[in-house]
Amino acid sequence: MENINYIAFDADDTLWVNEPIFQSAEEKCKEILGPYIAPSELSDRLYETEMKNLKLFGYGIKSFMLSLIETVVELSDNKVSGEDVQQIIDLGKDMIRHPVELLDSVEETVITLKEDYTLMILTKGDLFDQESKIARSGLDPHFKHIEIVSKKNEDVYSNILSRYAIEPSEFLMIGNSLKSDVLPVSSIGAQAVHIPFHTTWAHETIDPSDTEKDGYHKLENISQVPQLLNG
Amino acid sequence: MENINYIAFDADDTLWVNEPIFQSAEEKCKEILGPYIAPSELSDRLYETEMKNLKLFGYGIKSFMLSLIETVVELSDNKVSGEDVQQIIDLGKDMIRHPVELLDSVEETVITLKEDYTLMILTKGDLFDQESKIARSGLDPHFKHIEIVSKKNEDVYSNILSRYAIEPSEFLMIGNSLKSDVLPVSSIGAQAVHIPFHTTWAHETIDPSDTEKDGYHKLENISQVPQLLNG
Repeated sequence: MENINYIAFDADDTLWVNEPIFQSAEEKCKEILGPYIAPSELSDRLYETEMKNLKLFGYGIKSFMLSLIETVVELSDNKVSGEDVQQIIDLGKDMIRHPVELLDSVEETVITLKEDYTLMILTKGDLFDQESKIARSGLDPHFKHIEIVSKKNEDVYSNILSRYAIEPSEFLMIGNSLKSDVLPVSSIGAQAVHIPFHTTWAHETIDPSDTEKDGYHKLENISQVPQLLNG
Repeated sequence: MENINYIAFDADDTLWVNEPIFQSAEEKCKEILGPYIAPSELSDRLYETEMKNLKLFGYGIKSFMLSLIETVVELSDNKVSGEDVQQIIDLGKDMIRHPVELLDSVEETVITLKEDYTLMILTKGDLFDQESKIARSGLDPHFKHIEIVSKKNEDVYSNILSRYAIEPSEFLMIGNSLKSDVLPVSSIGAQAVHIPFHTTWAHETIDPSDTEKDGYHKLENISQVPQLLNG
Protein backbone atom coordinates (compact mmCIF):
# COMPACT_ATOMS: atom_id res chain seq x y z
CA MET A 1 0.00 0.00 0.00
CA GLU A 2 1.74 3.17 -1.18
CA ASN A 3 1.46 6.88 -0.38
CA ILE A 4 -0.16 6.50 3.02
CA ASN A 5 0.99 9.18 5.49
CA TYR A 6 -1.85 9.28 8.01
CA ILE A 7 -3.41 6.34 9.82
CA ALA A 8 -6.58 6.77 11.88
CA PHE A 9 -7.83 4.14 14.31
CA ASP A 10 -11.31 3.55 15.56
CA ALA A 11 -11.14 2.93 19.34
CA ASP A 12 -13.98 0.76 20.75
CA ASP A 13 -13.42 -2.89 19.77
CA THR A 14 -10.48 -1.85 17.55
CA LEU A 15 -7.96 -0.67 20.16
CA TRP A 16 -9.75 -1.95 23.26
CA VAL A 17 -12.64 -4.16 24.39
CA ASN A 18 -16.02 -2.39 24.45
CA GLU A 19 -19.09 -4.28 23.24
CA PRO A 20 -18.62 -7.18 25.73
CA ILE A 21 -18.86 -4.63 28.58
CA PHE A 22 -22.32 -3.61 27.35
CA GLN A 23 -23.37 -7.23 26.86
CA SER A 24 -22.20 -8.21 30.32
CA ALA A 25 -24.12 -5.26 31.84
CA GLU A 26 -27.22 -6.42 29.99
CA GLU A 27 -26.79 -9.92 31.44
CA LYS A 28 -26.40 -8.57 34.97
CA CYS A 29 -29.48 -6.48 34.44
CA LYS A 30 -31.43 -9.60 33.49
CA GLU A 31 -30.44 -11.14 36.84
CA ILE A 32 -31.52 -8.05 38.78
CA LEU A 33 -34.83 -7.96 36.97
CA GLY A 34 -35.64 -11.66 37.08
CA PRO A 35 -38.68 -11.05 39.33
CA TYR A 36 -40.34 -8.74 36.79
CA ILE A 37 -39.07 -9.46 33.33
CA ALA A 38 -38.46 -12.51 31.14
CA PRO A 39 -34.73 -12.34 30.23
CA SER A 40 -35.51 -13.18 26.61
CA GLU A 41 -37.72 -10.12 26.35
CA LEU A 42 -35.24 -7.60 27.73
CA SER A 43 -32.65 -7.66 24.92
CA ASP A 44 -35.12 -7.09 22.09
CA ARG A 45 -37.03 -4.36 23.87
CA LEU A 46 -33.83 -2.67 25.03
CA TYR A 47 -32.56 -2.56 21.45
CA GLU A 48 -35.89 -1.09 20.29
CA THR A 49 -35.73 1.59 23.00
CA GLU A 50 -32.10 2.38 22.15
CA MET A 51 -32.91 2.84 18.47
CA LYS A 52 -35.92 5.01 19.32
CA ASN A 53 -33.78 7.17 21.64
CA LEU A 54 -30.67 7.33 19.42
CA LYS A 55 -31.63 10.63 17.78
CA LEU A 56 -32.13 12.25 21.18
CA PHE A 57 -29.39 10.63 23.26
CA GLY A 58 -26.61 9.63 20.85
CA TYR A 59 -24.18 6.82 21.70
CA GLY A 60 -22.46 5.93 24.96
CA ILE A 61 -22.96 4.49 28.41
CA LYS A 62 -25.22 7.27 29.74
CA SER A 63 -27.57 6.78 26.79
CA PHE A 64 -27.51 3.02 27.38
CA MET A 65 -28.36 3.53 31.08
CA LEU A 66 -31.31 5.81 30.32
CA SER A 67 -32.69 3.43 27.66
CA LEU A 68 -32.23 0.51 30.04
CA ILE A 69 -34.15 2.27 32.82
CA GLU A 70 -36.90 3.23 30.39
CA THR A 71 -37.17 -0.35 29.09
CA VAL A 72 -37.30 -1.78 32.59
CA VAL A 73 -40.02 0.64 33.74
CA GLU A 74 -42.06 -0.30 30.68
CA LEU A 75 -41.52 -4.08 30.82
CA SER A 76 -42.15 -4.23 34.57
CA ASP A 77 -45.43 -2.40 34.04
CA ASN A 78 -44.13 0.37 36.34
CA LYS A 79 -43.46 -2.13 39.13
CA VAL A 80 -39.66 -1.77 39.13
CA SER A 81 -38.45 -0.74 42.59
CA GLY A 82 -36.29 2.22 43.53
CA GLU A 83 -33.58 -0.23 44.65
CA ASP A 84 -33.53 -1.83 41.20
CA VAL A 85 -33.34 1.53 39.43
CA GLN A 86 -30.36 2.39 41.64
CA GLN A 87 -28.78 -0.98 40.85
CA ILE A 88 -29.04 -0.19 37.15
CA ILE A 89 -27.40 3.21 37.70
CA ASP A 90 -24.63 1.51 39.69
CA LEU A 91 -24.19 -1.01 36.86
CA GLY A 92 -23.68 1.93 34.49
CA LYS A 93 -21.15 3.54 36.82
CA ASP A 94 -19.23 0.24 36.89
CA MET A 95 -19.23 0.24 33.07
CA ILE A 96 -17.79 3.77 33.05
CA ARG A 97 -15.11 2.80 35.56
CA HIS A 98 -14.33 -0.51 33.79
CA PRO A 99 -10.58 -0.88 33.19
CA VAL A 100 -9.55 -0.26 29.59
CA GLU A 101 -8.43 -3.63 28.22
CA LEU A 102 -6.27 -3.26 25.10
CA LEU A 103 -6.79 -5.82 22.36
CA ASP A 104 -3.96 -8.18 21.38
CA SER A 105 -0.91 -6.57 19.74
CA VAL A 106 -2.40 -3.06 19.85
CA GLU A 107 0.35 -1.35 21.81
CA GLU A 108 3.31 -2.80 19.88
CA THR A 109 1.62 -2.19 16.51
CA VAL A 110 0.90 1.45 17.34
CA ILE A 111 4.49 1.95 18.52
CA THR A 112 5.80 0.42 15.26
CA LEU A 113 3.50 2.48 13.05
CA LYS A 114 4.18 5.82 14.69
CA GLU A 115 7.79 5.61 13.44
CA ASP A 116 6.64 6.10 9.86
CA TYR A 117 3.12 7.53 9.98
CA THR A 118 1.14 10.26 11.70
CA LEU A 119 -1.38 8.45 13.90
CA MET A 120 -4.84 9.62 14.91
CA ILE A 121 -7.68 8.21 17.01
CA LEU A 122 -10.99 8.81 15.28
CA THR A 123 -13.78 7.48 17.41
CA LYS A 124 -17.52 7.87 17.72
CA GLY A 125 -19.33 8.15 21.01
CA ASP A 126 -19.71 10.11 24.17
CA LEU A 127 -16.98 12.78 24.46
CA PHE A 128 -16.52 12.30 28.18
CA ASP A 129 -16.41 8.46 28.08
CA GLN A 130 -14.01 8.39 25.16
CA GLU A 131 -11.58 10.96 26.61
CA SER A 132 -11.53 9.01 29.85
CA LYS A 133 -10.80 5.74 28.02
CA ILE A 134 -8.07 7.31 25.89
CA ALA A 135 -6.39 8.72 29.00
CA ARG A 136 -6.65 5.41 30.87
CA SER A 137 -5.48 3.34 27.85
CA GLY A 138 -1.99 4.80 28.11
CA LEU A 139 -1.93 5.03 24.30
CA ASP A 140 -2.37 8.80 24.24
CA PRO A 141 1.31 9.72 23.65
CA HIS A 142 1.42 7.70 20.41
CA PHE A 143 -1.35 9.66 18.68
CA LYS A 144 -0.82 13.12 17.24
CA HIS A 145 -4.54 13.89 16.86
CA ILE A 146 -7.65 12.75 18.71
CA GLU A 147 -11.05 13.25 17.09
CA ILE A 148 -14.22 12.24 18.92
CA VAL A 149 -17.30 12.56 16.72
CA SER A 150 -21.00 11.92 17.21
CA LYS A 151 -21.31 9.96 13.96
CA LYS A 152 -19.07 8.63 11.19
CA ASN A 153 -20.26 9.30 7.68
CA GLU A 154 -18.68 10.61 4.47
CA ASP A 155 -19.16 14.27 5.45
CA VAL A 156 -17.56 13.77 8.84
CA TYR A 157 -14.52 12.05 7.31
CA SER A 158 -14.21 14.69 4.58
CA ASN A 159 -14.35 17.51 7.12
CA ILE A 160 -11.66 15.97 9.31
CA LEU A 161 -9.37 15.33 6.32
CA SER A 162 -9.80 18.88 5.12
CA ARG A 163 -9.21 20.31 8.62
CA TYR A 164 -5.81 18.58 8.77
CA ALA A 165 -5.07 19.18 5.06
CA ILE A 166 -4.88 15.42 4.39
CA GLU A 167 -5.50 14.09 0.86
CA PRO A 168 -7.82 11.04 0.79
CA SER A 169 -5.12 9.12 -1.10
CA GLU A 170 -2.72 9.41 1.86
CA PHE A 171 -5.27 8.41 4.52
CA LEU A 172 -5.92 4.96 5.95
CA MET A 173 -8.70 4.20 8.45
CA ILE A 174 -8.61 1.04 10.58
CA GLY A 175 -11.66 -0.23 12.45
CA ASN A 176 -14.02 -3.05 13.32
CA SER A 177 -17.21 -1.59 11.85
CA LEU A 178 -17.86 -1.87 8.11
CA LYS A 179 -20.66 0.67 8.46
CA SER A 180 -18.71 3.34 10.38
CA ASP A 181 -15.02 2.73 9.70
CA VAL A 182 -14.84 1.21 6.23
CA LEU A 183 -17.62 2.06 3.78
CA PRO A 184 -17.75 5.86 4.22
CA VAL A 185 -13.94 5.97 4.04
CA SER A 186 -13.83 3.98 0.79
CA SER A 187 -16.56 6.23 -0.58
CA ILE A 188 -14.43 9.37 -0.24
CA GLY A 189 -11.48 7.72 -1.99
CA ALA A 190 -9.38 6.89 1.07
CA GLN A 191 -8.17 3.46 2.15
CA ALA A 192 -9.74 1.33 4.88
CA VAL A 193 -8.82 -1.81 6.76
CA HIS A 194 -11.57 -3.86 8.36
CA ILE A 195 -10.55 -5.90 11.43
CA PRO A 196 -13.71 -7.66 12.60
CA PHE A 197 -14.23 -7.99 16.34
CA HIS A 198 -15.80 -11.23 17.56
CA THR A 199 -18.90 -9.36 18.75
CA THR A 200 -20.66 -6.54 16.91
CA TRP A 201 -23.57 -4.46 18.19
CA ALA A 202 -26.66 -5.14 16.06
CA HIS A 203 -26.79 -1.46 15.09
CA GLU A 204 -23.32 -1.70 13.50
CA THR A 205 -23.96 -4.84 11.47
CA ILE A 206 -24.53 -4.55 7.75
CA ASP A 207 -25.50 -6.89 4.95
CA PRO A 208 -22.19 -8.16 3.48
CA SER A 209 -23.62 -7.90 -0.04
CA ASP A 210 -23.62 -4.11 0.41
CA THR A 211 -19.85 -4.14 0.58
CA GLU A 212 -18.95 -6.12 -2.49
CA LYS A 213 -18.77 -3.06 -4.67
CA ASP A 214 -16.33 -1.29 -2.37
CA GLY A 215 -12.64 -2.02 -2.17
CA TYR A 216 -11.14 -2.37 1.27
CA HIS A 217 -8.71 -4.62 3.11
CA LYS A 218 -9.71 -7.18 5.68
CA LEU A 219 -7.30 -8.39 8.36
CA GLU A 220 -7.70 -10.69 11.33
CA ASN A 221 -5.44 -8.83 13.73
CA ILE A 222 -4.04 -5.34 14.01
CA SER A 223 -0.51 -6.80 14.07
CA GLN A 224 -0.89 -7.48 10.32
CA VAL A 225 -1.20 -3.78 9.47
CA PRO A 226 2.55 -2.99 9.12
CA GLN A 227 2.96 -5.89 6.68
CA LEU A 228 -0.03 -4.70 4.63
CA LEU A 229 1.48 -1.22 4.46
CA ASN A 230 4.88 -2.56 3.36
CA GLY A 231 3.42 -5.01 0.88
CA MET B 1 -8.59 46.25 21.06
CA GLU B 2 -5.89 45.64 18.45
CA ASN B 3 -4.48 42.59 16.69
CA ILE B 4 -7.45 40.29 17.27
CA ASN B 5 -8.05 37.93 14.33
CA TYR B 6 -9.96 35.06 15.92
CA ILE B 7 -13.03 35.31 18.13
CA ALA B 8 -14.37 32.26 19.97
CA PHE B 9 -17.81 32.18 21.58
CA ASP B 10 -19.04 30.04 24.41
CA ALA B 11 -22.51 28.74 23.51
CA ASP B 12 -24.77 27.94 26.52
CA ASP B 13 -26.02 31.19 28.08
CA THR B 14 -23.72 33.19 25.77
CA LEU B 15 -25.32 32.53 22.37
CA TRP B 16 -28.53 30.90 23.60
CA VAL B 17 -30.58 30.23 26.75
CA ASN B 18 -29.51 27.15 28.68
CA GLU B 19 -29.44 27.29 32.48
CA PRO B 20 -33.14 28.31 32.79
CA ILE B 21 -34.07 25.09 30.94
CA PHE B 22 -32.33 23.06 33.67
CA GLN B 23 -33.90 25.14 36.42
CA SER B 24 -37.37 24.80 34.94
CA ALA B 25 -36.92 21.02 34.69
CA GLU B 26 -35.91 20.96 38.34
CA GLU B 27 -39.07 22.88 39.25
CA LYS B 28 -41.26 20.48 37.26
CA CYS B 29 -39.52 17.59 38.98
CA LYS B 30 -40.42 19.08 42.37
CA GLU B 31 -44.08 19.06 41.32
CA ILE B 32 -43.92 15.43 40.18
CA LEU B 33 -42.24 14.39 43.41
CA GLY B 34 -44.37 16.39 45.84
CA PRO B 35 -45.76 13.21 47.42
CA TYR B 36 -42.30 11.92 48.39
CA ILE B 37 -39.89 14.79 48.68
CA ALA B 38 -39.79 18.26 50.24
CA PRO B 39 -39.11 20.65 47.34
CA SER B 40 -36.56 22.56 49.41
CA GLU B 41 -34.53 19.37 49.86
CA LEU B 42 -34.37 18.39 46.20
CA SER B 43 -32.17 21.23 44.87
CA ASP B 44 -29.40 20.84 47.44
CA ARG B 45 -29.28 17.06 47.22
CA LEU B 46 -29.42 17.13 43.42
CA TYR B 47 -26.46 19.49 43.32
CA GLU B 48 -24.52 17.21 45.71
CA THR B 49 -25.29 14.18 43.53
CA GLU B 50 -24.30 16.07 40.36
CA MET B 51 -20.96 17.09 41.86
CA LYS B 52 -20.33 13.52 43.08
CA ASN B 53 -21.12 12.14 39.60
CA LEU B 54 -19.32 14.83 37.58
CA LYS B 55 -16.09 12.86 37.24
CA LEU B 56 -17.99 9.84 35.93
CA PHE B 57 -20.73 11.46 33.85
CA GLY B 58 -19.39 14.84 32.71
CA TYR B 59 -21.75 17.68 31.79
CA GLY B 60 -25.03 17.68 29.88
CA ILE B 61 -28.67 16.72 30.01
CA LYS B 62 -28.13 12.95 30.17
CA SER B 63 -25.86 13.38 33.20
CA PHE B 64 -28.45 15.66 34.78
CA MET B 65 -31.21 13.07 34.20
CA LEU B 66 -29.19 10.25 35.76
CA SER B 67 -28.25 12.37 38.79
CA LEU B 68 -31.87 13.46 39.15
CA ILE B 69 -33.13 9.85 39.10
CA GLU B 70 -30.47 8.84 41.62
CA THR B 71 -31.36 11.74 43.94
CA VAL B 72 -35.06 10.95 43.74
CA VAL B 73 -34.55 7.25 44.48
CA GLU B 74 -32.48 8.21 47.52
CA LEU B 75 -34.70 11.00 48.85
CA SER B 76 -37.88 8.95 48.38
CA ASP B 77 -36.28 6.14 50.37
CA ASN B 78 -36.70 3.89 47.29
CA LYS B 79 -40.44 4.60 47.16
CA VAL B 80 -40.38 6.47 43.83
CA SER B 81 -42.73 4.79 41.35
CA GLY B 82 -41.96 3.53 37.86
CA GLU B 83 -44.36 6.17 36.49
CA ASP B 84 -42.39 8.94 38.19
CA VAL B 85 -39.06 7.62 36.92
CA GLN B 86 -40.53 7.63 33.40
CA GLN B 87 -41.83 11.19 33.95
CA ILE B 88 -38.28 12.28 34.83
CA ILE B 89 -36.92 10.62 31.68
CA ASP B 90 -39.64 12.37 29.64
CA LEU B 91 -38.72 15.67 31.28
CA GLY B 92 -35.11 15.11 30.12
CA LYS B 93 -36.26 14.31 26.59
CA ASP B 94 -38.24 17.57 26.57
CA MET B 95 -35.08 19.43 27.63
CA ILE B 96 -33.14 17.85 24.76
CA ARG B 97 -35.88 18.79 22.29
CA HIS B 98 -36.28 22.30 23.73
CA PRO B 99 -36.14 24.92 20.96
CA VAL B 100 -32.87 26.83 20.83
CA GLU B 101 -33.65 30.39 21.91
CA LEU B 102 -30.95 32.85 20.83
CA LEU B 103 -30.07 35.62 23.27
CA ASP B 104 -30.69 39.27 22.32
CA SER B 105 -28.58 40.65 19.47
CA VAL B 106 -26.62 37.42 18.98
CA GLU B 107 -27.43 36.84 15.34
CA GLU B 108 -26.75 40.40 14.13
CA THR B 109 -23.54 40.65 16.18
CA VAL B 110 -22.19 37.41 14.80
CA ILE B 111 -23.03 38.49 11.25
CA THR B 112 -21.24 41.82 11.80
CA LEU B 113 -18.16 40.23 13.34
CA LYS B 114 -17.70 37.55 10.70
CA GLU B 115 -16.92 40.28 8.15
CA ASP B 116 -13.62 41.05 9.89
CA TYR B 117 -12.79 38.07 12.09
CA THR B 118 -12.60 34.27 11.94
CA LEU B 119 -15.32 33.04 14.29
CA MET B 120 -15.37 29.85 16.31
CA ILE B 121 -17.78 28.19 18.74
CA LEU B 122 -15.86 26.79 21.70
CA THR B 123 -18.26 25.09 24.05
CA LYS B 124 -18.16 22.61 26.88
CA GLY B 125 -20.65 19.82 27.32
CA ASP B 126 -22.17 16.75 25.80
CA LEU B 127 -21.03 16.33 22.18
CA PHE B 128 -24.40 15.14 20.95
CA ASP B 129 -26.46 17.83 22.76
CA GLN B 130 -24.17 20.63 21.62
CA GLU B 131 -24.05 19.54 17.97
CA SER B 132 -27.82 19.34 17.94
CA LYS B 133 -28.17 22.84 19.43
CA ILE B 134 -25.62 24.32 17.02
CA ALA B 135 -27.49 22.80 14.07
CA ARG B 136 -30.87 24.00 15.34
CA SER B 137 -29.56 27.50 16.22
CA GLY B 138 -29.12 28.34 12.54
CA LEU B 139 -25.83 30.05 13.46
CA ASP B 140 -23.67 27.27 12.04
CA PRO B 141 -22.84 28.99 8.70
CA HIS B 142 -21.27 31.98 10.49
CA PHE B 143 -18.64 29.94 12.32
CA LYS B 144 -15.53 28.57 10.63
CA HIS B 145 -14.63 26.17 13.45
CA ILE B 146 -16.66 24.33 16.07
CA GLU B 147 -14.89 22.88 19.10
CA ILE B 148 -16.84 20.91 21.69
CA VAL B 149 -14.72 20.04 24.71
CA SER B 150 -15.32 18.18 27.96
CA LYS B 151 -13.70 20.89 30.08
CA LYS B 152 -12.23 24.38 29.62
CA ASN B 153 -8.90 24.96 31.29
CA GLU B 154 -5.59 26.50 30.24
CA ASP B 155 -4.34 23.29 28.60
CA VAL B 156 -7.50 22.90 26.56
CA TYR B 157 -7.32 26.49 25.29
CA SER B 158 -3.59 26.19 24.54
CA ASN B 159 -4.13 22.98 22.58
CA ILE B 160 -6.90 24.46 20.49
CA LEU B 161 -4.89 27.60 19.72
CA SER B 162 -1.90 25.54 18.70
CA ARG B 163 -4.02 23.22 16.54
CA TYR B 164 -5.25 26.21 14.52
CA ALA B 165 -1.87 27.99 14.66
CA ILE B 166 -3.42 30.96 16.48
CA GLU B 167 -1.21 33.21 18.64
CA PRO B 168 -2.74 34.03 22.06
CA SER B 169 -2.36 37.75 21.28
CA GLU B 170 -4.75 37.46 18.30
CA PHE B 171 -7.41 35.42 20.16
CA LEU B 172 -10.49 36.70 21.96
CA MET B 173 -12.88 34.47 23.93
CA ILE B 174 -16.42 35.63 24.78
CA GLY B 175 -18.54 33.90 27.40
CA ASN B 176 -20.72 34.07 30.49
CA SER B 177 -18.56 32.02 32.83
CA LEU B 178 -15.59 33.64 34.55
CA LYS B 179 -14.35 30.21 35.56
CA SER B 180 -14.54 28.56 32.12
CA ASP B 181 -14.47 31.36 29.54
CA VAL B 182 -12.43 34.16 31.10
CA LEU B 183 -9.81 33.22 33.69
CA PRO B 184 -8.06 30.36 31.83
CA VAL B 185 -8.01 32.50 28.66
CA SER B 186 -6.43 35.48 30.44
CA SER B 187 -3.93 33.10 32.01
CA ILE B 188 -2.55 32.00 28.65
CA GLY B 189 -2.14 35.59 27.49
CA ALA B 190 -5.22 35.84 25.27
CA GLN B 191 -8.08 38.31 25.62
CA ALA B 192 -11.46 37.56 27.17
CA VAL B 193 -14.83 39.28 27.39
CA HIS B 194 -17.17 38.38 30.22
CA ILE B 195 -20.88 38.83 29.50
CA PRO B 196 -22.72 37.71 32.64
CA PHE B 197 -25.98 35.84 32.18
CA HIS B 198 -28.72 36.56 34.69
CA THR B 199 -28.54 32.99 36.02
CA THR B 200 -25.37 30.99 36.62
CA TRP B 201 -25.17 27.35 37.67
CA ALA B 202 -23.67 27.10 41.17
CA HIS B 203 -20.79 25.01 39.77
CA GLU B 204 -19.75 27.87 37.45
CA THR B 205 -19.82 30.63 40.07
CA ILE B 206 -16.55 31.92 41.45
CA ASP B 207 -15.50 34.33 44.17
CA PRO B 208 -15.15 37.73 42.44
CA SER B 209 -12.05 38.49 44.53
CA ASP B 210 -10.27 35.71 42.61
CA THR B 211 -10.57 37.71 39.43
CA GLU B 212 -9.24 41.06 40.49
CA LYS B 213 -5.71 40.21 39.52
CA ASP B 214 -6.68 39.19 35.98
CA GLY B 215 -7.37 41.62 33.21
CA TYR B 216 -10.49 41.05 31.13
CA HIS B 217 -13.35 43.02 29.69
CA LYS B 218 -16.88 42.95 31.04
CA LEU B 219 -19.87 43.82 28.86
CA GLU B 220 -23.60 43.73 29.47
CA ASN B 221 -24.64 42.59 26.02
CA ILE B 222 -22.99 40.85 23.09
CA SER B 223 -24.01 43.78 20.85
CA GLN B 224 -21.26 45.85 22.55
CA VAL B 225 -18.49 43.57 21.26
CA PRO B 226 -17.91 45.29 17.87
CA GLN B 227 -17.52 48.64 19.61
CA LEU B 228 -15.03 47.20 22.10
CA LEU B 229 -13.01 45.75 19.20
CA ASN B 230 -13.01 49.06 17.33
CA GLY B 231 -12.25 51.12 20.45
